[in-house]
Order: sequence, then structure tokens, then C-alpha cells
Amino acid sequence: MPKKSLRIIPLGGLGEVGKNMMALEYRNDIIVVDAGVLFPEESMPGVDLVIPDISYLVRNRDRVRAFFITHGHEDHTGALPYVLRELDVPVYAPRLAYGLISVKLKEHSGLRNVSLREIEPNKTIKVGSFGVEFFRVCHSIPDAMGLAIRTPLGLIIHTGDFKIDHTPVDGMPTDLAHLATLCKDGVMLLLSDSTYAEVPGYTASERVVGEALNQVIGQAEGRVIVATFASLIARIQQIMDAAGRHHRKVSVVGRSMVNNVKMALEMGYLSDPDEVLVPTSTLRKLQPHQTVVVTTGSQGEPTSALVRIANGDHRDVQIRRGDTVVISATPIPGNETVVSKTIDNLLRQGAEVLHDRIATVHVHGHASQEELKTMLNITRPRFFVPVHGAYHHLVAHAELARLMGVTSDNVFILEDGDVLELTEDRGEVTERVPAGHVYVDGGQVWTVNSDVLSDRRALAREGVVVITLAVDKGTGRVLSAPRIASTGFMDLEDMPDLLERAMQVASAAVDGNSISQDMDTVTNAVRESVSRFLYTETHLHPRIIAVPIEV
Amino acid sequence: MPKKSLRIIPLGGLGEVGKNMMALEYRNDIIVVDAGVLFPEESMPGVDLVIPDISYLVRNRDRVRAFFITHGHEDHTGALPYVLRELDVPVYAPRLAYGLISVKLKEHSGLRNVSLREIEPNKTIKVGSFGVEFFRVCHSIPDAMGLAIRTPLGLIIHTGDFKIDHTPVDGMPTDLAHLATLCKDGVMLLLSDSTYAEVPGYTASERVVGEALNQVIGQAEGRVIVATFASLIARIQQIMDAAGRHHRKVSVVGRSMVNNVKMALEMGYLSDPDEVLVPTSTLRKLQPHQTVVVTTGSQGEPTSALVRIANGDHRDVQIRRGDTVVISATPIPGNETVVSKTIDNLLRQGAEVLHDRIATVHVHGHASQEELKTMLNITRPRFFVPVHGAYHHLVAHAELARLMGVTSDNVFILEDGDVLELTEDRGEVTERVPAGHVYVDGGQVWTVNSDVLSDRRALAREGVVVITLAVDKGTGRVLSAPRIASTGFMDLEDMPDLLERAMQVASAAVDGNSISQDMDTVTNAVRESVSRFLYTETHLHPRIIAVPIEV
Repeated sequence: MPKKSLRIIPLGGLGEVGKNMMALEYRNDIIVVDAGVLFPEESMPGVDLVIPDISYLVRNRDRVRAFFITHGHEDHTGALPYVLRELDVPVYAPRLAYGLISVKLKEHSGLRNVSLREIEPNKTIKVGSFGVEFFRVCHSIPDAMGLAIRTPLGLIIHTGDFKIDHTPVDGMPTDLAHLATLCKDGVMLLLSDSTYAEVPGYTASERVVGEALNQVIGQAEGRVIVATFASLIARIQQIMDAAGRHHRKVSVVGRSMVNNVKMALEMGYLSDPDEVLVPTSTLRKLQPHQTVVVTTGSQGEPTSALVRIANGDHRDVQIRRGDTVVISATPIPGNETVVSKTIDNLLRQGAEVLHDRIATVHVHGHASQEELKTMLNITRPRFFVPVHGAYHHLVAHAELARLMGVTSDNVFILEDGDVLELTEDRGEVTERVPAGHVYVDGGQVWTVNSDVLSDRRALAREGVVVITLAVDKGTGRVLSAPRIASTGFMDLEDMPDLLERAMQVASAAVDGNSISQDMDTVTNAVRESVSRFLYTETHLHPRIIAVPIEV
Repeated sequence: MPKKSLRIIPLGGLGEVGKNMMALEYRNDIIVVDAGVLFPEESMPGVDLVIPDISYLVRNRDRVRAFFITHGHEDHTGALPYVLRELDVPVYAPRLAYGLISVKLKEHSGLRNVSLREIEPNKTIKVGSFGVEFFRVCHSIPDAMGLAIRTPLGLIIHTGDFKIDHTPVDGMPTDLAHLATLCKDGVMLLLSDSTYAEVPGYTASERVVGEALNQVIGQAEGRVIVATFASLIARIQQIMDAAGRHHRKVSVVGRSMVNNVKMALEMGYLSDPDEVLVPTSTLRKLQPHQTVVVTTGSQGEPTSALVRIANGDHRDVQIRRGDTVVISATPIPGNETVVSKTIDNLLRQGAEVLHDRIATVHVHGHASQEELKTMLNITRPRFFVPVHGAYHHLVAHAELARLMGVTSDNVFILEDGDVLELTEDRGEVTERVPAGHVYVDGGQVWTVNSDVLSDRRALAREGVVVITLAVDKGTGRVLSAPRIASTGFMDLEDMPDLLERAMQVASAAVDGNSISQDMDTVTNAVRESVSRFLYTETHLHPRIIAVPIEV
């Protein structure tokens, strides 16, 4: 490839390409879009967070110019505290994301000198060969932006997470008019959100939910409790508006919800003209039909307010017959079971429960097929790379782009770590850079490697049995009978003498190998005979650790 | 309550009331409907199967007269091998279930003398005070039945798992006419499937899927691979029919699919008039557009044929560009992620993939709201107990019953273990019997208690660290330095000297307690100081096992 080429490198998504981080590179300049975390999969027990592998950026740190953050969600911002330890570059973010990131960075010592800068939409930031302009999009958090990136080879449009809501609650729709102006001289490359590329039609406006919530709050005979995402400020505004209309007071419950509401009021993202917000203590003085509670826990998170309310162990809120609970969210894949259990526990206590399977109490924050086509129509890109989605979402989005006239050869389905090299007229994946994942476990970044994870999975399946051998330092002979302990293996009351008999097996293995003075041989013989014995007796395969100690 | 009462006792469902087992009791007679297994939840690592707790039945074994099995699915039959070890009573089952249970019982020694009896629908079986008649229903396996149970207090209708498909593939619809005749003198109690009680409208007929599959198989330019449930015989028939129509041969891949097709052909549930079925070896001699593969793996099961095909490591079937893969199933909650990954891996290899989110290639096997209303209308029960569903499904179904005119006081939402006592005119939950769960782990039945499970979850989170102490038998003094080993804890290459330093900490703890000659005190001190040290260094909390050995 000639030197005058752009390189597009999705760097981290745990199955969703480029979702959390994407690098754009032109000669001596690298800029990075987003730096987010993802929540670990089931196969990663004990892992707190997953963050992108930034070894490529670290290796090229002299060329990395800046991070551009599209919006304030954790999966686009949460890796910054870890990434900025390694890369000392400015971070540009829209106002709300700026506020959220500031709070987060303060919690991490050693990051006080980060250059975090609030951007204004529709103004160009020059960074090396790139000119970056943010433009407004709608998403499930205020102040979400796409990026228009001028490069020596042409304009790149990165939509960020978006939907086209013509009637958003905050009055700031996706800025299609400005985007069209930006694109009037042609777009080289469109990178566009694929999350809902398999869903036909349009994503409903947030207003639709507002109407449903207004109806629920107006008609409920008792208290209404609404659970939603703490960052879904528009939803909270609609709840407050409906409460005001129906002469109810609103109390906010759940730490992250309380913090976000406070912050959003201060920053002007929420307004309370009817003065509906009251402290939780005030609720007790009001009749149930005069109150609304807004709370966290819409994903069934075990320590969230809603789950504690459902389990009957929340200090301030107890379910009473006549309460209506609205779960104003869709379970993220994997959370279906815990959400379902939460609903059941609320019903058991006598609440009526509305959720998105039986009422229009949620719309999602991503564009459906007709909106994606609108984006393709306005930008009419020469090259197209679907991003933010599992592989099948990208395939569906690529098909839409071909339908809309993008040349098949110019549509690229990338995987994280692929380097797409683009000249003015053609593109090619020329290499791969590391784009595995790094795990955060116990608040620190580890390369929790797959051996550790597979050991953990094995321990989870059948527990562990520990055998201790005392060995004479001088002669190498085993002294006294081995000791055995176990945890997570089985209920020993079912076979009270099992470990006792295992010790006899271990002793016999020691005696059988008493000629050998090689500690490893004896230890292995003991481990194997105990393993065989336990399998015969229980059909279980616990992990066995044999530790010889020299005395 | 007077003595002349019926007792209704749901006994096991892991969150779905009465799904796997339900006891009906009148004075000296107990009959049991179904004896199924459930697959363990995420919070039960290592557990193979969950079966109902039958201690109530065992305690009353003299009164248990028979098991009645509604259909051949595992969640209605799979516990029989365990249950029949404890209860020596006859088992009545429809023909296909009879065949499947026979095979299963043969695998378990000691169950050769079980009295397993094949029933014919619409004939009464007298068992104690009960007269039980099976009637045909439609479900996602042939030969599914509901039960009409005559009792001294009136008729009980138990629907089993059902839907009302007026045009089923096997030509045997839910027998509404016979059911109506049975019910003509009034129904005392209806127990009805609630799985889809939240879904409005009707469940589409299996034929709808047949038409979609016919279109896919007719229009595909290359090979078509269809993954579905091995017991969904009607689906397999429709695939074979479509293949015949379009002059394709069908090969069956995947052990359980091969076994089920063989059995279904022998028993006459499948027919192959066009002689489309060929061995897999024949496929190689045919052009792709002449072939269809039917396979397992629609739930993304790790060892299934489809997953191995998707991963490129199946011996007989490799994906080629031009292949069309149809996933003719819906992911069971919890399987969404693995199914999504399987789809992605198939797409990566160049297949086109159709699944239920983008094409009508699956319908489920349970009745939706309008069908549930039809059942309520035909039976017009005095009492109603919604069964087979999570609590919120039961609540939705109860609401339908009230809408249909069942008196509110006569609708009972039970939980497993509740004993509903019914007289002719009223009902009441009078007591609870044990209805927890028993786990099968390593092929044997254990009371894997919650301590064992919580130990396993703890081990999975941060692994285990083992400390060995040698103690002088005579003096109680610790001899030599403690030894430390770990598994599933962390990648020790990140902190190569960590365990070495932990041993020093352990030694210091021993020295600090050298005055004490109490082994427990020393062991605890060592455990706590190592735990503290490791937490300070790593912010991880591994499970710590300290084993003192006397020499």
C-alpha cells in the first residue's frame, strides 16, 4: 500500500466490533474514538471488568494525539482511568461525558493532570492531520455525539451509538441538517452503529414511553415505582413531568440514581419546575397515590435498590398491595433470569408489575433499519464499515449498505485488531494488531490469562481437595499419614467417612512408593490414587492439590 | 378442612411451578403427574441436573399409586430413573414417551422391574379413587397429552404442555371435541400451562414454519443445513417433505438427532416416502444444491454438531460459501449469547444464516393468550390453578381466568410445595411440604447443599490458596516454614515473588504465635495474615485453606 493511506483499527468490543475503542491513523498521527469497559462474560468468573488491549497504542505512544469520547456511557468511557496511566494525551468529550469522566478520574490517584477538555458541537478541533467536529445524535443518554473527521484523504463520519429521534425529550434531535452540510462534498468512510441492524422499521421516539408512563402514573391507584437506567436522564424527566401533571411527588432511591439526578439537575439536563422532587423521608407523610419512586435495578443487579425492594430488605421502600412497579428497560442479554426473578418477587408481595414485554414502557437507544438507511442516504459514503455489533449485526448492516448502493468491494466487515488500510479508491485489511482483552480483577489490571480462568471454572464445577504430606528433609521419606481437606466438593454429611477413607488411600499410596525417595513421584502417586478413589466413590472430579512440606 | 378434600401439590419446577412434577391426593391415594429434570442455573456450578425433592412422596410411599407422564420431554420424564429407585409404582405414558423412557431406564441398572405401561388416549385408567384419561394435545413433540382425572369431588383437567394447533403436521390436533365431551358435566379444577400467558394472540401453526422452510430449501442455491431440537419430529418431517419436493437428499448429523430420527422412523412418527434420507457419506457424491443436513445444536450446546460445524472442527460437515444455515429454534433464556456466537462463526465462514429473529423459521410449543382463553372456555372450571411458568406467567394466566369468569377466590397461584386443599365449594392452602431441589452431580443424587454451592462460587471468583504447616506431634510447635500453593488465583508471572513473600508472611505469623501451642490458633493466625497480605498486594480475596499436619 502507498504511504498516503488511512488506517482504521477497531480495538476492543468483547464480540462487538469497535464498540469500546477504535483507532484512526494517518501517517504520524493516531486518534482514538472512545475508551470503554465491558462487563465480563460467564466464562470469566471473578473478573470485574474487561478493557481493551491497548498494547498497539502503547507501542506507538509517540503518535497517539488524543481520545475523542462520543458519550458518557461506561462502555465508551470506563477504560479511561486505566488507559490514561499509559497514555498521556488529551481527552475531548461532550459536556455530560466530561462531567462523568471528571468524577471518575478523581477517584483514581495519579490522574490529576489529565488534560480533559469539554467540546462544543459543530466546532473543529485540529489534532495533527485530523480535524474533528462533533455533531449531535440521539441516544439513551444526553449529549451523545457522532464525529465528522476531516483527513487528507477525505471525510470520515463515525456515528457513535445513535438513533434518529425526531422528537427527543430534551428537544435536541440527531442533527441531520448539519450532518448533511458536512457531507455535501462527499464522504470517504462511514462507520455506523449496527446494534439494531437486524430490526426492521424505526425505533420509536422516547416520547412514546413518556405517554405510556404518563398514563400509568395517572391511572395507578397507589404508589408508582419506576426502575430505569441511572443515565437515562430523558426517562427520568418524563417521569417527573408525568408526576407533576398528576400531582404526585417523586423520590429518588438508589445511589447511582441519586448521584445522577443531582448531577443532571446541577448541569441543567433535568429540570424540576413543578418541584416534584422530595427526599425519601417525605414519602412517609404522603398518601401512596401522591407518590412516585424512581430507582435503579432495572437489570436485576443483586445489590440494586429494586432488587432489595423486591426481596423485602430495603430500608426505605417496602412493597404494599396497590403499588405499581414499572421496569422501564429491556434486560440486557444474560440478565433475563435475574430480571424475571425480581418481577416474581415483586408480584409475590402484591405489586402490579409492568415491563417491556407487556407494556410500552421502554424504547432502546439505537437506530433500526430505516434509520440506518437514512444515515447511509445522507452520508452516501465511498467506503462503509459497520461497527458496534456482533458479527451477525455487522453482516446485516453491510447488506443494508449494499442495498443503498455502496459498492460491495468497499464494504468491510472487520474484527477487532484488523487494520483496514484505505487509499482514496480502495481498501484492504493489511495486518492484525493485538486486540485481545485485559481484565480488571480486584480493582487492578491483570493479564488474567486463560489458564487462570479455566482453573477457576474447574474449581467451580467440583471444588478442590487438598492433600498435605510431611516429608523428611534429610531422607525424603514421608513422615506420618497425609492430611486431607476440601471445599466446594460435596456435602460430606452424605458420606461422613469419605475423607477418612481417602486419607487411608493416600497413606497406602505413600507406603506403596516408600522405596522411592523422589518427592514428586510420591506426591503424584498420592494425588492420582486419591483422585481415582474419589471418582469411584462419588463420580466427581474435584481439583486435587497435593502439597508436600519438608521438615 | 373436612376429610373429603382433594390436595393439589406442585412439587418441582426450579421457578416454574409444578412444571416437572405435581401430586394429586385424595384420602388414601396419591397420583403424580410427570417426573422431570431441569437444567441447573448459573448459581449452581458443577451441578449436572436438578430433580424435584420427593421426600413428601417417599414419606407417603404407601399411598402413592402411579405416575402419569404427559409427554416425552426430559423436563417431564428425566427424573424417573432417580425417582423410581425410591418409589415402586407403575408409570403410565403415551406411546412415544413410553419408548423414550424405556431406553432411559435400560441405562440404569436396578430398574429392570419397573412397571412401565403404554396408554391409549380416551381410555380410563382406574387408580385408587382416581380415573385417569389421557387426551391429545399439540406440543413440540409427538404424542403429547393432557389428563382428565375423575375424582370423587369432580373432574380435574391438567393440560400438560400444550398449544392448540388446528393444522399440526402429524394430523392430530388438540382434541377439543373430546375434551368438551369430557367436560360436559362440569369441571372442578383446571390446571393449565402458563408458559406463554403473557403473549397476546395465537401461537402460529407448525405449518407456517413448514412453508418458510420449504421456501428456503427451494430457493437456496447451495446446501441447506437446518438445526433444530432432536425431539421436534414434526419439524424434521417438514424438512424432509420440503427436501423431497425440491429433489434434495437429507442427511442427519448429531448423535441425539440420529437416534431420534431412527426411533421416529421405526415407531412411525416420521415417514420417508420420497426416500430422501441418505447417510452422511453419500453427501459427498452430491452437488450442494442437492443436499439438506438436519442437525442438533440449535441452543449453541458446546459439543453439539452445529457448534462443531461453526467452529470448523466437525469431521463430516465443513461450511462452504453458498451454504444456508437455518436455526429453527428460539434460544432458551440464558443461551442467547452462545447461540449468537455460533451464528457469528457460521457467518465468518461464509454461510448465510437464517434464525428466528429475521425469518419465520420457528414457532414455539405453548399456547398463547387466545388459546388459553379457549381452554378456559371449553372447561369452564370452578377452580383454576395456573401451572408451568414463572410466577409472573402464573399471575398473567390467573388474570385471564378472572376475565373469563372464574371467581377470584377460586383462582390459586401456588408455589412448589404449597398444599392446596379443595372441597366441593372452596379451596385453601393449608400447609407446605418440602419441595426444594435435589441435585445430580457426577451421575449420582446428592443433596449438594447451598454451602457447597456457595463455596464453589467463591472458588470461581478468585481461586484458592493452600497453606501447609508441619506441626510437632509432641510439642505442638510448628516445624519449618509453611508451604504455599495456589490455583485459579492469578497469573503469578505478573508478580513472580508473590507466593514467596506470602510464605515469609506465614512464617512471621508462626513466629509471632510461637508461644501458643494451640494448633488452631496458629493456623488461624497464618490464614488471616496471608489473606491480609494477598489482599493488600492484589486486591483479590482468594479462598484460603490452611492445613496443619502433625509429624
